[in-house]
Amino acid sequence: MTVDKNDVKLIKDSLAKVMVGTGAENLQHGRDFYKYFFTNFPDLRVYFKGAEKYTAEDVQKSERFEKQGQRILLATHILANTYEDLEVFKAYARETVTRHRQFKMDPALWLAFFTVFVGYLKSKNAIDDDETEAAWHRLGKIFNEECQKHLKASGLPSTEGQTA
Amino acid sequence: MTVDKNDVKLIKDSLAKVMVGTGAENLQHGRDFYKYFFTNFPDLRVYFKGAEKYTAEDVQKSERFEKQGQRILLATHILANTYEDLEVFKAYARETVTRHRQFKMDPALWLAFFTVFVGYLKSKNAIDDDETEAAWHRLGKIFNEECQKHLKASGLPSTEGQTA
Repeated sequence: MTVDKNDVKLIKDSLAKVMVGTGAENLQHGRDFYKYFFTNFPDLRVYFKGAEKYTAEDVQKSERFEKQGQRILLATHILANTYEDLEVFKAYARETVTRHRQFKMDPALWLAFFTVFVGYLKSKNAIDDDETEAAWHRLGKIFNEECQKHLKASGLPSTEGQTA
Repeated sequence: MTVDKNDVKLIKDSLAKVMVGTGAENLQHGRDFYKYFFTNFPDLRVYFKGAEKYTAEDVQKSERFEKQGQRILLATHILANTYEDLEVFKAYARETVTRHRQFKMDPALWLAFFTVFVGYLKSKNAIDDDETEAAWHRLGKIFNEECQKHLKASGLPSTEGQTA
């Protein structure tokens, strides 16, 4: 399979508005992800030990989520930058799954992440068209397929066979 | 600063010969890195707890180095794929340094890595010209600059002030 070059451009253009970095603005982009995430999907805070009750205000003041914010943004920028080099993209998916093994995540979250992330990008005015949103969901679908395949190969719970 | 597009092409072309993946050939590319590394730089095995005396033959049989081989190759593919998106490249450098904090590495190794890696690529016939080698060293220089800056900002030993 090949990746649509226009998808790559749309995705990279949206991420350019939430660039990683050490500047105040860049750090805020990262915090804003977790503020959006915890406000809109409070049930998923359960995966963040010690922060299960965090509000957006708590995230704003937290050094942990300042760092975590950069890490999650970096991960999405790596996805965008490797998307056309699909074997690398898939290897990054597998590596990400392996590193999250300890958190015993619901396997459905690997796909659900992209709903959260697109919501965040919209909240940052980094996406304002359906085409970019669709491009992100296409990327998410391919990412998730590799994650589920790798979970299964690793003998871990996967969504394979669970969903249509 | 901007990155030379031809450097990116040369670097990516060399890495295409040591692609990551789950196939036997891909896994061997990864093992081959550590076989080359431990044979040619045996003193650096000290950083690999439990493998301080590993020979190339030990690496070949090791599940740990099968996985580690994919991880190091993936990291270099990520460098190549983010090189033109320089803020992402630098964020990846910082994240890599942070993740290696526990190993208390000599800070000079962040630059030295590229001498090892270029040697490995040559041993795999993935580099056979001076231009590609020079492109890798230019990438390594920029990567290392960000690593040293981040080490210093994190209050850790860096090479800044130590070398000309």
